[in-house]
Amino acid sequence: MFKISKKSKKSKARIGVLKTKHGAIKTPFFMPIATKGAVKAITADEMRKLKSQIVLSNTYHMLLRPGLEILKKAKGLHKFMDWDGPMLTDSGGFQVFSLAKIRKILPHGVKFRSHIDGKEFLLTPKKVLEIQKIIGSDIRMVLDVCPAYPCTRKQAEDAVATTTKWAHESLKHRDKDALLFAIVQGSVHEDLRLKSAKELVNLDFDGYAIGGLAVGEPCQDMMKVLDYTVPALPENKPRYLMGLGYPEQIIEAVKRGIDMFDCVIPTREARHGRIYMFKQGALRLYGSTAFNITNSKYSKDFTSINSSSKLPELRTYTKAYLHHLFRTQEPLSIRLSTLNNVEFYLELMARIRSAIRRGQL
Amino acid sequence: MFKISKKSKKSKARIGVLKTKHGAIKTPFFMPIATKGAVKAITADEMRKLKSQIVLSNTYHMLLRPGLEILKKAKGLHKFMDWDGPMLTDSGGFQVFSLAKIRKILPHGVKFRSHIDGKEFLLTPKKVLEIQKIIGSDIRMVLDVCPAYPCTRKQAEDAVATTTKWAHESLKHRDKDALLFAIVQGSVHEDLRLKSAKELVNLDFDGYAIGGLAVGEPCQDMMKVLDYTVPALPENKPRYLMGLGYPEQIIEAVKRGIDMFDCVIPTREARHGRIYMFKQGALRLYGSTAFNITNSKYSKDFTSINSSSKLPELRTYTKAYLHHLFRTQEPLSIRLSTLNNVEFYLELMARIRSAIRRGQL
Repeated sequence: MFKISKKSKKSKARIGVLKTKHGAIKTPFFMPIATKGAVKAITADEMRKLKSQIVLSNTYHMLLRPGLEILKKAKGLHKFMDWDGPMLTDSGGFQVFSLAKIRKILPHGVKFRSHIDGKEFLLTPKKVLEIQKIIGSDIRMVLDVCPAYPCTRKQAEDAVATTTKWAHESLKHRDKDALLFAIVQGSVHEDLRLKSAKELVNLDFDGYAIGGLAVGEPCQDMMKVLDYTVPALPENKPRYLMGLGYPEQIIEAVKRGIDMFDCVIPTREARHGRIYMFKQGALRLYGSTAFNITNSKYSKDFTSINSSSKLPELRTYTKAYLHHLFRTQEPLSIRLSTLNNVEFYLELMARIRSAIRRGQL
Repeated sequence: MFKISKKSKKSKARIGVLKTKHGAIKTPFFMPIATKGAVKAITADEMRKLKSQIVLSNTYHMLLRPGLEILKKAKGLHKFMDWDGPMLTDSGGFQVFSLAKIRKILPHGVKFRSHIDGKEFLLTPKKVLEIQKIIGSDIRMVLDVCPAYPCTRKQAEDAVATTTKWAHESLKHRDKDALLFAIVQGSVHEDLRLKSAKELVNLDFDGYAIGGLAVGEPCQDMMKVLDYTVPALPENKPRYLMGLGYPEQIIEAVKRGIDMFDCVIPTREARHGRIYMFKQGALRLYGSTAFNITNSKYSKDFTSINSSSKLPELRTYTKAYLHHLFRTQEPLSIRLSTLNNVEFYLELMARIRSAIRRGQL
């Protein structure tokens, strides 16, 4: 299921292959986000052209819209959104805590009201796996309790206890068609993180995610959590750092042994005109930078958006044109910037894998 | 320059070919609108895939943003927006009257303030042709006075007089690289339309547009204007009805001898989820219909957006998926609906040409 092909001698970084029902994925990898069943402004076919290995979608959003009835009729999200590669779905735990209007943690699940229409839902460990089965994702996440940052020690303790209890319950509803991942909680408390990791590792999941990070804590605190949590996870299982992050953070996390990432940064920042690119002369390395295309200096920059892009539109259109599209609020702006940033993140991961292979990271 | 290959025996419709510097165009044709240098949400390459023969852009918008300095540096709009086919630009006359904050008609031109930042501009017959030369369009329009509807007879008279005077002035600044079209005004007054047509025809332009229609007057009044104006235009020159229209209006105008159309309907209505399609079983005919994809009945319609589209994305994605994208305000929704509607309008014109060729229109 997960095979490591090389371990770095310089750090805890490793490269490998994770097998799923819809194909094998080279690790470490990044998952572009299709929250509502589409990567913002771009088609599934473009995701294939960009060689995206996997996309991520959200149980919470899919449950609300289009809803389970439509997903069943569509024969799953793969078919609905025309994506034939691997797909990971989160459990909805994070969205219940960050988006839902009112929520109440009960012993057996979490009750909440939709942020769209106020409709009441109950998610249980069993229910979120049933929903993910209807979605048809290849990697599924257990329901967890993700406290806000900062939170009290008591809240962090309770989150760990409930997350473990629900993870245990989730195993009863395991589906042989998909990989099942547990989520380590514990906020920024070393003892709680280690407790959470130990309890979940004992239950033997297909992979382990680290949740409750990249939620507002200082970056060095996050790295400290990785420093002590990753060694508590099994070597031979994939490790997923949820919700991260900036390119340099991803590199730091890879060095600490993380294999999987997802983040809204490339797509969300694209919508605000923030463009990621590799530093000049850094062709085989991963030194990157970002700039705001709306800055007036780009009005006269007639160089390509990305002269080495896989996509002709990013090679042909200039920064000056993209600047103009943003200034005039043309919707093509978001499409081009999103394509650029998703391609950048995918290429970043390819360069990271290559650097590990060459023993340079 | 313009060659008619067949005239209908049933109506005044005709088919032909209009030659421009960037290629020949089969008439009658429709011009998708790239107001600000991009057809909403879609790339120039997609316009090529859809076999669009020409695009239309706006002098007024291009003057304001990106402005002439950028257009010069970009070496024209063709290169800026990656469009290598024919391009028509209007003169800005219509936008000055419909968009600009304050405008004042002077004997030698029109002064106005930008609707964006209030900056003052003066457009003269000479200036609008200089701007269109910088844009680099293949078909250029003279500066006209386009009164609102309804207007007084005096306003219509003045508009005709000034339009003729400016058309005369425009001829001094003719550019051999482009076709130059005059614009017939006169509101809904037969004598004024005939006067305007006669005066402009005497000046011998490359083509004649009928302006000041599709601005709110009843459809039968518009058709009446065509009935008496078209015969006053030369047989051997292309005739352009500005700003029209719905599919059935285009068919009626073609029957009255019109060769060229432009309209925001396919792109603007796409953004509101209105989807154009041909009636079932009407494969070689031009019977069409439109529906609102946001209507709940489409939530479970798993048929293709358009199973006979040139574009794989419109064949693959379902109406249910497009409905979902609109309901969740995903930007991919606008892209797919715009592609669909532009393809529909281009196909409508192809079917109209084919029907004329077969002697059926």
